[in-house]
Amino acid sequence: MNTVLDAIYTRRSIRHFTDEPVNQALIDEILWAGSWAPSGLNNQPWRFAVITDRDLKDKFVPLTRYGKVIEAAACLIPVFLDRQAMYNDVKDHQAAGACIQNMLLAAHSLGLGAVWLGEILKSADQVRKLLGLPENMELMAVLALGHPARRDQKSSRKDLEELVIFRR
Amino acid sequence: MNTVLDAIYTRRSIRHFTDEPVNQALIDEILWAGSWAPSGLNNQPWRFAVITDRDLKDKFVPLTRYGKVIEAAACLIPVFLDRQAMYNDVKDHQAAGACIQNMLLAAHSLGLGAVWLGEILKSADQVRKLLGLPENMELMAVLALGHPARRDQKSSRKDLEELVIFRR
Repeated sequence: MNTVLDAIYTRRSIRHFTDEPVNQALIDEILWAGSWAPSGLNNQPWRFAVITDRDLKDKFVPLTRYGKVIEAAACLIPVFLDRQAMYNDVKDHQAAGACIQNMLLAAHSLGLGAVWLGEILKSADQVRKLLGLPENMELMAVLALGHPARRDQKSSRKDLEELVIFRR
Repeated sequence: MNTVLDAIYTRRSIRHFTDEPVNQALIDEILWAGSWAPSGLNNQPWRFAVITDRDLKDKFVPLTRYGKVIEAAACLIPVFLDRQAMYNDVKDHQAAGACIQNMLLAAHSLGLGAVWLGEILKSADQVRKLLGLPENMELMAVLALGHPARRDQKSSRKDLEELVIFRR
């Protein structure tokens, strides 16, 4: 049994959470896992915010169509890129994706549930202002995190034959 | 022992390979792992090329400063986004990063070594033409893959205190 592949295949977007808070040591482990993603020139452009305060968290609810997920989550982790640390937009955005995927896999491996919220990028300025962050912090996503209330999400992927466009 | 976290922390960019070829079933497992990354609207914009033919592989050597890595690797996996499947450049580039990170972790978990080559993006047009692919295929990276000749790479990351810019 390859537990890494198993985690990759069984991870799901979790949008329903119990009321249980998430231990800060687990949150830090997830951030640390994110930081071990590769980045071009090892520039590590990612920056993290951690929000567990309910009043502050509730201010995020109207910023996305997925406010109910934010209400239910015990913790939000807005992920930013620091423009001052970036060197190439496409490569740095890819690095952010690798970082976020590490965090999702880490959360899953720790028995937690998480979902990658991208639609909230339409409110990137408001997120930055709510946290009092400078303009060089470019919002990449918000992770909603908590103890999963259910794990029955189904998902599917295209067949490999559709995805492999050349082989020799 | 959390083997997922262990894989995230012990994965390194591998640039030195033995001559041993990589089994096609392992290559397909790596592609499949990549395809299980999350993507916005589950649009799965990633597409893969697989190159194990030595003559074809050698044509990639002059396209990057890292030609020696390509010479040494048993397999190249150019990863593309299909512009016709994309919906948002930033989010799709992030998805490509998540996909590539899954592939790197999968390779590591299978005892293989891999490195994410990004510098070759300067030759994206030539890569596309070498493979006879249409213009809607946007090169994201080339993964060089093989059996590692050494595993003594060191790496390091910033402290969490530098990366966490807000906590409440």
